[in-house]
Amino acid sequence: MKTVALLRSMLDELGGITDEPGRLTRTFLSPAMERAVKLAGCWMQDAGMDVRVDQAGNLIGRLEAIQVGRTGPVRRGGAGRSALPKTLILGSHLDTVRDAGKYDGALGVLLPVVALYELNSRGVKLPFHVEIVGFAEEEGVRFASAYLGSQGYTGRLKRQTLELRDADGVSVREAIERWNGLPSSRSKRVGVNTLHLKPAHRRDELLGYVEAHIEQGPVLEAEKLAVGVVSAIAGQSRYRLTWTGKAGHAGTTPMNLRRDAFAGAAEFALAAEKLAQATPGLVATVGSLAVRPGAANVIPSEAVHTLDVRQARDTARQKALFQLGRLAEKIARKRGLKVAWQRTQDNAAVNCSPQLTARLERSVNTVQGRSLRLVSGAGHDAVAMSALTPVAMLFVRCRGGLSHHPDEHVAPKDLGVALKVMVDFLERLAADAK
Amino acid sequence: MKTVALLRSMLDELGGITDEPGRLTRTFLSPAMERAVKLAGCWMQDAGMDVRVDQAGNLIGRLEAIQVGRTGPVRRGGAGRSALPKTLILGSHLDTVRDAGKYDGALGVLLPVVALYELNSRGVKLPFHVEIVGFAEEEGVRFASAYLGSQGYTGRLKRQTLELRDADGVSVREAIERWNGLPSSRSKRVGVNTLHLKPAHRRDELLGYVEAHIEQGPVLEAEKLAVGVVSAIAGQSRYRLTWTGKAGHAGTTPMNLRRDAFAGAAEFALAAEKLAQATPGLVATVGSLAVRPGAANVIPSEAVHTLDVRQARDTARQKALFQLGRLAEKIARKRGLKVAWQRTQDNAAVNCSPQLTARLERSVNTVQGRSLRLVSGAGHDAVAMSALTPVAMLFVRCRGGLSHHPDEHVAPKDLGVALKVMVDFLERLAADAK
Repeated sequence: MKTVALLRSMLDELGGITDEPGRLTRTFLSPAMERAVKLAGCWMQDAGMDVRVDQAGNLIGRLEAIQVGRTGPVRRGGAGRSALPKTLILGSHLDTVRDAGKYDGALGVLLPVVALYELNSRGVKLPFHVEIVGFAEEEGVRFASAYLGSQGYTGRLKRQTLELRDADGVSVREAIERWNGLPSSRSKRVGVNTLHLKPAHRRDELLGYVEAHIEQGPVLEAEKLAVGVVSAIAGQSRYRLTWTGKAGHAGTTPMNLRRDAFAGAAEFALAAEKLAQATPGLVATVGSLAVRPGAANVIPSEAVHTLDVRQARDTARQKALFQLGRLAEKIARKRGLKVAWQRTQDNAAVNCSPQLTARLERSVNTVQGRSLRLVSGAGHDAVAMSALTPVAMLFVRCRGGLSHHPDEHVAPKDLGVALKVMVDFLERLAADAK
Repeated sequence: MKTVALLRSMLDELGGITDEPGRLTRTFLSPAMERAVKLAGCWMQDAGMDVRVDQAGNLIGRLEAIQVGRTGPVRRGGAGRSALPKTLILGSHLDTVRDAGKYDGALGVLLPVVALYELNSRGVKLPFHVEIVGFAEEEGVRFASAYLGSQGYTGRLKRQTLELRDADGVSVREAIERWNGLPSSRSKRVGVNTLHLKPAHRRDELLGYVEAHIEQGPVLEAEKLAVGVVSAIAGQSRYRLTWTGKAGHAGTTPMNLRRDAFAGAAEFALAAEKLAQATPGLVATVGSLAVRPGAANVIPSEAVHTLDVRQARDTARQKALFQLGRLAEKIARKRGLKVAWQRTQDNAAVNCSPQLTARLERSVNTVQGRSLRLVSGAGHDAVAMSALTPVAMLFVRCRGGLSHHPDEHVAPKDLGVALKVMVDFLERLAADAK
């Protein structure tokens, strides 16, 4: 399929737009993000879409429904509400982690764009509106808080989130104020007081949200499948733990008189690892740790680290967190330390829509012969979108399970399978709607 | 004794000179160190000493010998070599750890200065030269390498040490080039090619080196003694260990497929702790650790940490290091990690001079009624000085064994005992020399 080559070159081109020369890094409302929005917006226009950027910096392409028996597109408010076509939302995010791969996010934005090219070339008319969204923020890099883009789109960007500050001391609110929307409409400045924290759509206007995404894990590869559907997105909790002990001289403080904060943190990290290994579906990660005072010859008085815990079932995650809390207390008591927990993120597990997922699965079965249901360990824009509308997700095989890394890779033939699934899904949805 | 009040106020004043407002931190050749050298140099001049700063930044006060029957000081080279008075070196270091106490180092520099005040006020003339040295570097904070000052003084600053770099990328060599010596002699710049790596003295010119120091441990307190003498200084080895695994997504990488570099480091740190707990006299410390990439949702691909191992007997320390090496290999193999060891410091245990220590002990017995011999778990400038001349050390009781901490404390009456011991030691040495 010629369009697969096109999709690959688009992924390459978008993957070259970065804030850090030599490696791919695009963060919320950054200069590179402005260029990425401009480029992806042009591609959306090529698909016949009207393109705009909302106040949160999300790129939104909209293709109005064409209904049989009418001469032009159906506009909202033109006839009785019940007869009006609804909107299907497709998309993913345009931001990246630092030193990222080029598929995470970008694939879910560009795949439906190219699917529309394919449908257009075949003269297929969709009887529902389509919006493709390139969300402005999903990775949580700039403000250490994820889903800023989809939270903005769904009207769930909290006022306290707007006051978060980046490493330069700029708040989300200020970053949005300085953002000028589409580069072509610089004159339309968005003031802080005009920030609309309202959803882009009413719930009853929508058909749902479908997101394609690189799996970022090893399951499809192990099952020898190009694509699969997501049954649920694991809930996740993130904490910052602070262990406090007492500094002491590394040479003169006998081992039995130490209150080593790092030793407590290390023991906890291993206990969390052990619990996760023993609990099916549970993952627990200490990804970041700092030790104070941090000298070779001083016993650490403080250790601060992150803890990321995920599970497909919320009850299982809560149970694990309870167990981890007790483990931490036990370790702290034994070692004469204090331990404090600060919650930095907490997302409930999201079940994908059975109806929408069944439709997506039907297309996967048609194209690939069989399908597979996976639990997503990673969070996605679909998590925030599920507050507004039913969601479904298509996972695309990831080489070696490697993601958040420049070597992240999707095989070209898997891109072809994913594209066929997306086209088939849209065609069948169109046929069913008629 | 009035001089004890003076000593206390001098310790307070020097303890207020810091590179970090609100806490005491003075590192090698830093701005605060320049001010500390100037202040301590003035106090040395008040004791009648000639004051200079050598190329390594050591503050050196020298009081020439007064011999009975002569009218003035005896200069080197003035008469037959055999008849010449020798030099007794006293001192300790002027640098500190981060967020330090005010006794560690400073006490050993100021105690002999005040002892000279006392001898001067009583009209006691010393028939040997006295040098009091405020060493520029002992703690290893800035370049993660200790004894830079005493290595410079003894002519044992290795060329490879000169190439070590601090956190800002400045090498020891460059730091020395930028150092202008005493603030009052800024014009005398020291060029890199004129760095004399020669000892300050020939071995046969010296009587020995005596260092007073806060114990930094709990032994004297447990024995209810103000001071004690040191029989030996434990050998110590410091390493930088680098664990390398593979980064991965914290949500999508199953526990059994992870190669978590931090988990390996944590397991090793606990294994080292366990070995030290089970081995009498052995202490092992992981005082500093950094994790890469260091994001909450990414499995660490790299963990770098220090390891500090000490034991009074070199063979026991070497055996422990061999065991730790095997433990690290075992952990790395089990977890699919690589581990690399870089030695940053290695000091053999140092035995103090029996003769000099016996003299010091005699003064301790005279002042305190009884003495005690201790092994020092901490390294001291005496370690580097032992390469040049016999060494002895006086330990002063430390409240709660707490050191390397702002609450580090020596009771005023213990300062009085230490001062009496130092005065008695100098007087007896003078009497014996006549």
